[in-house]
Amino acid sequence: MGKPAVPAQMEALVLASYGPPPFPLGVETRPVPKPGNGQVLIRVTASPVNPSDLHFLEGEYAFRKRLPTVPGLEGSGRVVDVGDGLLARRLAGKRVAFAPATQADGSWAQYAVASATQCFRLPDRISDEVGAMALVNPLAAIGLMERLKALRATSFVSTAAASALGQMLLRLGRKRGLDVINVVRRPEQVDLLTRHGATHVLNTADRDFQDQLDELCRRLHCRVALDAIGGDMTAQLLGALLPGGRAIVYGGLARQPMVLPQPDIVFGNKSVEGFYVPTWLATKSLPKLVLLERRIPRLLDRELGTDVRERVTLEDAPRAIEDYRHAMTGGKVLITPDQSRGTTR
Amino acid sequence: MGKPAVPAQMEALVLASYGPPPFPLGVETRPVPKPGNGQVLIRVTASPVNPSDLHFLEGEYAFRKRLPTVPGLEGSGRVVDVGDGLLARRLAGKRVAFAPATQADGSWAQYAVASATQCFRLPDRISDEVGAMALVNPLAAIGLMERLKALRATSFVSTAAASALGQMLLRLGRKRGLDVINVVRRPEQVDLLTRHGATHVLNTADRDFQDQLDELCRRLHCRVALDAIGGDMTAQLLGALLPGGRAIVYGGLARQPMVLPQPDIVFGNKSVEGFYVPTWLATKSLPKLVLLERRIPRLLDRELGTDVRERVTLEDAPRAIEDYRHAMTGGKVLITPDQSRGTTR
Repeated sequence: MGKPAVPAQMEALVLASYGPPPFPLGVETRPVPKPGNGQVLIRVTASPVNPSDLHFLEGEYAFRKRLPTVPGLEGSGRVVDVGDGLLARRLAGKRVAFAPATQADGSWAQYAVASATQCFRLPDRISDEVGAMALVNPLAAIGLMERLKALRATSFVSTAAASALGQMLLRLGRKRGLDVINVVRRPEQVDLLTRHGATHVLNTADRDFQDQLDELCRRLHCRVALDAIGGDMTAQLLGALLPGGRAIVYGGLARQPMVLPQPDIVFGNKSVEGFYVPTWLATKSLPKLVLLERRIPRLLDRELGTDVRERVTLEDAPRAIEDYRHAMTGGKVLITPDQSRGTTR
Repeated sequence: MGKPAVPAQMEALVLASYGPPPFPLGVETRPVPKPGNGQVLIRVTASPVNPSDLHFLEGEYAFRKRLPTVPGLEGSGRVVDVGDGLLARRLAGKRVAFAPATQADGSWAQYAVASATQCFRLPDRISDEVGAMALVNPLAAIGLMERLKALRATSFVSTAAASALGQMLLRLGRKRGLDVINVVRRPEQVDLLTRHGATHVLNTADRDFQDQLDELCRRLHCRVALDAIGGDMTAQLLGALLPGGRAIVYGGLARQPMVLPQPDIVFGNKSVEGFYVPTWLATKSLPKLVLLERRIPRLLDRELGTDVRERVTLEDAPRAIEDYRHAMTGGKVLITPDQSRGTTR
């Protein structure tokens, strides 16, 4: 396979400033970035919009980039240029799932640069579309399940359970014989999860939600909650978990600080801890990471699958992101820069 | 030694209802309780007022007893009657430190009943006065130090550092070569701890307290805080601790729920856990408990010593408790029922 021609210019979705929505996003023509030492250049086929992207746009994610910047925390595509280094050169011409460097521009563009260590090679049978969603949520799902295993949990509560990640946790949990207490906030999400085979689905809008949660946690001896929400939810979870209970917080959909009553923590011996994929990955040895790279594709069309609601061009992405923000259940928005108006290919 | 005569009646400090101060406490004449199976009756020599007693009087402790009740969570004295059972009989006539059963009346009385498993025998060289404060704080100090060791901490932050327990943590920490960052809230507490040899003492009243705390945690690579306060303090601690930091909350002096920002927990990989002596003791095997029983007396006149500000009769205790509540630094109030007015001995 010859080296594909790389144009000098590309189109990219650019964020002008951090803050609450509506987000100041627009398509701009930018120079195609050059891969540095240990990096590769990817022609992006697809890149999803995840809850973590919304946090990034708000300026509330783990890091901020220098503005204006291209958002997008994961994607897929083909490596069309490589920098120095063995790991980078080994990826030349390959199809990959990737996470852009935290210091570089993101994946909502026709081209993006990533460190070779932040690329997973995609086997032929995994489409670019599925591969585009192979990192952020699947890695979180695997990491959280690993934590449940270390804690010897036989059941767990899962909040925002109708989300893409919530559904992965449900499928992985069921596969491993764990009782999953799914928590959602709308009746249609109860229906969705029930159709997908969930046994226990609670709706926070029910007046007796806390009682239902208490009762189920008692009945299923539940001591662990995986919480995407925070705010008041975390205290509700801690209150329901048995003594020794632990809330593992991996998101902040409530966009409010957690308010935790002392007695639950002190006398109930309960605890709150965080989960963040990069922190978890940093604890892994290289052989473990290679195993992970092999394992994820095997799960992508089963437990780690993600529904797509809409494929959009870069031009149409701001509108689709706004729609997604208002109704996050019902599949991912996938940005497909190849279909964009001014494509230079 | 013959069996001492036990009167039918005794004086006791009785709480009429739970709630905020001033506490409805008064001296009443009550029947002397009878030791049940596995229990002993203790003629109480001394019983301290601890912060946990104040939480109990407020109705905010780990448990409530049926009202009216005798408060008091620890004390010392001589075993004057025993119920059935080997463990109980072995204690007949012995001097003990004890924690009253959570279901029975407490230690602020001339006599109290305790389970034999909740009594530590006092060696001759330990006075009743020192023995009266041998459980609540010393066990917490030993348990918290054990947790620090398990976490391989080389430094820790300690809040309410001028308290009896805070000073124990300082002495034990220094003895083990740990850097202790003491946090207090008044200048005279800074002086007190500095006189006691503390190297790092911060005052929350300083305008740049958070900056000072951040800087010290960075310099001393501090990842653990032992927190007696909660409320806003826990978030300040988490903010200052290095990534992976952990706040171990063992009290609730702020009397406010903790408010914790999500990003510190999720992206900073920080966590909050509780520490409560009975929970910790429940994890110990009987041989470990026996070792503990031998170890505490050796430490009571050194690292685990406690200053006494005042010895009071049962009649004078309500006034002294009110004084203590307003200025908790400066030694314990010790209730000595033997000196009480209507003593029937």
